Amino acid sequence: MTTIQRPLQESEVPDWSHRSEILVVGYGGAGSCAALEAARAGADVTILEVAGGGGGTTALCGGHVYCGGGTPVQKACDFPDSAEDLFQFLIHSTPFQDDQKARLYSDRSVEHFEWLESQGVPFRRDYYPHRHSLQPDATCLIWTGNEKVWPFSEVARPAPRGHKAAGDGDAGHLIMRALMERVDELPIEKRYDTAVDRLIVNDQQRVVGVAASQYGERFYLRADKGVILTAGGFIMNHPMVANHIPDFKKDILDHGSPYDDGSGIQLGMSVGGAAIHMSEHFITLPFYPPADLTFGILVNRHGQRFVSEDSYHARVGDAAMKQTDHMAYLIVDDSCFHHPDINRFVHEMPRTDVAIEHVATEGSIAGLESALGLPEGTLQATLAIYNANAAKGKDPIFHKSTDWLRPLDQPPYAAFDVSLGRAPYVGFTLGGLSTRATGEVLDEQGSIIEGLYAAGRNSCGLPRSAEGYASGLSVGDATFFGRLAGRQAASTD
Amino acid sequence: MTTIQRPLQESEVPDWSHRSEILVVGYGGAGSCAALEAARAGADVTILEVAGGGGGTTALCGGHVYCGGGTPVQKACDFPDSAEDLFQFLIHSTPFQDDQKARLYSDRSVEHFEWLESQGVPFRRDYYPHRHSLQPDATCLIWTGNEKVWPFSEVARPAPRGHKAAGDGDAGHLIMRALMERVDELPIEKRYDTAVDRLIVNDQQRVVGVAASQYGERFYLRADKGVILTAGGFIMNHPMVANHIPDFKKDILDHGSPYDDGSGIQLGMSVGGAAIHMSEHFITLPFYPPADLTFGILVNRHGQRFVSEDSYHARVGDAAMKQTDHMAYLIVDDSCFHHPDINRFVHEMPRTDVAIEHVATEGSIAGLESALGLPEGTLQATLAIYNANAAKGKDPIFHKSTDWLRPLDQPPYAAFDVSLGRAPYVGFTLGGLSTRATGEVLDEQGSIIEGLYAAGRNSCGLPRSAEGYASGLSVGDATFFGRLAGRQAASTD
Repeated sequence: MTTIQRPLQESEVPDWSHRSEILVVGYGGAGSCAALEAARAGADVTILEVAGGGGGTTALCGGHVYCGGGTPVQKACDFPDSAEDLFQFLIHSTPFQDDQKARLYSDRSVEHFEWLESQGVPFRRDYYPHRHSLQPDATCLIWTGNEKVWPFSEVARPAPRGHKAAGDGDAGHLIMRALMERVDELPIEKRYDTAVDRLIVNDQQRVVGVAASQYGERFYLRADKGVILTAGGFIMNHPMVANHIPDFKKDILDHGSPYDDGSGIQLGMSVGGAAIHMSEHFITLPFYPPADLTFGILVNRHGQRFVSEDSYHARVGDAAMKQTDHMAYLIVDDSCFHHPDINRFVHEMPRTDVAIEHVATEGSIAGLESALGLPEGTLQATLAIYNANAAKGKDPIFHKSTDWLRPLDQPPYAAFDVSLGRAPYVGFTLGGLSTRATGEVLDEQGSIIEGLYAAGRNSCGLPRSAEGYASGLSVGDATFFGRLAGRQAASTD
Repeated sequence: MTTIQRPLQESEVPDWSHRSEILVVGYGGAGSCAALEAARAGADVTILEVAGGGGGTTALCGGHVYCGGGTPVQKACDFPDSAEDLFQFLIHSTPFQDDQKARLYSDRSVEHFEWLESQGVPFRRDYYPHRHSLQPDATCLIWTGNEKVWPFSEVARPAPRGHKAAGDGDAGHLIMRALMERVDELPIEKRYDTAVDRLIVNDQQRVVGVAASQYGERFYLRADKGVILTAGGFIMNHPMVANHIPDFKKDILDHGSPYDDGSGIQLGMSVGGAAIHMSEHFITLPFYPPADLTFGILVNRHGQRFVSEDSYHARVGDAAMKQTDHMAYLIVDDSCFHHPDINRFVHEMPRTDVAIEHVATEGSIAGLESALGLPEGTLQATLAIYNANAAKGKDPIFHKSTDWLRPLDQPPYAAFDVSLGRAPYVGFTLGGLSTRATGEVLDEQGSIIEGLYAAGRNSCGLPRSAEGYASGLSVGDATFFGRLAGRQAASTD
């Protein structure tokens, strides 16, 4: 854990041990892209990384990049998409989206995908048709968000936009391998095992460098054009998480690298950068695969449904977490429960050691209601309305897709406890520094802090709520806005 | 709006125009109490206030102080209470309460009430028995929180704890009048029209003073013992509100003084103070009086109940705001609707110019369901379950008190639109600097920032969510922890 010091005045710097035009703090998806674009624009760039090598959290992730608007893969797989549909989806599916970032990202999404390919990130031209949180194979295109979920399906034509790098299972490392190879080809200096703990400002309060330590030695590094913060979120900093996301004190599986300690965000805050939406987070309840469980319904402790069960798993997790006492049950009938994958599902959740607990099986809905301790009549009323509508191919409450709609009327009925603290919820942080789309860090009043840029999870970007999340949005945002920050910093006089 | 500058090094101060031991920034409830206690402990105190006189937001409020544990008023009115019950209520009714602050406040609540009285704040020894957001007369004791609401009613013996200063209507000005009279009796310097926009730190990063402006002139004021920030919340700073509480972009009535601009919080942040729970807020849906509307039920756009309708109005507003599309309806039958006060209620909300809109009257529940566009069968199922249980004096879902429980079965049935953006929601901010109970400001990692204290809404105190709010909690917290901060700063060597 890097402890951040208050900014140092340039006049107090004993001597500059290093000088470059741009310092990039953190060598993951955002940092590598920022460095590449800045160096190609002619800037002299140094990357500082606290770990022993590059990769960051991007190298640990599944490897989805959320792109749309008609990528080569979407075209090859016959999924029409447009920049406008992508934009409308982004601004409607996330309640307080940054419209400017969403517009830029949508308009340039195809270009960004092609740029990633041109850097050597491998993507196949095929489609994985199943409902899954991460395809197990090396196929590319997959539905990874709430595109088909009402009401978003009505404001934007749905299209699959998760583009996975061509590797089995988790494939984020393939993205980073390509980006780091390109960095290696350029005259970009890299310093590992180097913890940046202090910004340096001049008399005009412009950020002009950083103080860092490597193997116990202190360095003062000047940045003539700017410092770009790309050092990740703060899920591993438990005091910060307690300060901003108190619900995460429950049993959440922290998802990130050990260096997601908030130090980059704190560096920005130390010079007046506004840290915004710090309570927002990704939280997921990965209740599929098997996809057939989507035929079930989710109810809270009042026996009420609360979300369309065909939503992306983070939208489901977010909704479940907001129910009374964070309690929720997944209710299925025999047709789902006898799915061949069910035992694997119950006993071995994908990518976790934690199982979702099967807590009751009863011959009737009334019996299940009673076994779960739900108020009498509530689950029965919910099922009666759900089944009557499902039989007609309708869900007038949450508009669940007909793909996953059929009456639950084949006893026995079973329930899984998917409450927060009981089921394997996975979380990470989404709050970060307030930035322009081009990376400039802003203060609480919206003024630019000269010489300072941020991207990736050091900023608050497109992924800014679990409700609106889609797999690949973080990597898409980090790499795209990392590039923009690199170019912007390089263009500084 | 005061624009906050980054901290100034003491070595850069041209000359100290003023020197005292303690500077109090903001002269409302917290600031006055901090100044009083610090001065009585022998410290040389100066108050800096941006407005033309003292009072702050406390002078504008209703005048409730939330106290318990057996105050003289509780005793006179025969309501038994204990410090332990108060503590249990505080930690259970607010999801992420600060246990240390809650414990101190509970143990010393009677002493604090008596202290306020000894300062000259007038409190009668009587009880207002009706369900009301603010009693119209000068009576003292009133239920102002969720004490009788399940499940809190089961963990702590309920007692009324709202103590209103003895004045008709809004009475906060009586609290401030007494406190300011006591300040006037002591050798405490007061400077009005003085905007503090910068902290001054020494080489050890200790806060040693402030920079301020008065009538265009710049002053540098030294504080040998400490600076106490008591300058209010940030509801009037719209960029900050957009950064942290995006839902407030809807039609919220901002509640506060014009100087609740977040400048005190930003001053603390400028030296590394952690601003915590910045997304938390008070939000209320004042749907009573008339209290008889509590016999109604609240449903969301899915026809589901979502909160016990006998909850405190902020708990109701918070729950309503969290429903799909922020939509909620109040459903009543003829027995409520024909209440003599109903017209006054509908056309003239207390303390606002906005009315809650009556949107439908129908002869049957099915008709009302249809008129509101609720999914078929949903409101009917909700009412069927509610009425069947109410007839037996039960509410197994939300455990609404039997005081407000009777079947809604007297047609016609009516609905009011109480959705956010349609009904008169009132809001203010609750996030603020992370502090010890004794006022020391903490950084993100929990370390003390030397020389800096905060109280009132410059800190995150006992009132830290709408869900757990009770009228009088802000004034109670501000005055009590203001006192503690004043004493702590005065005790500094």
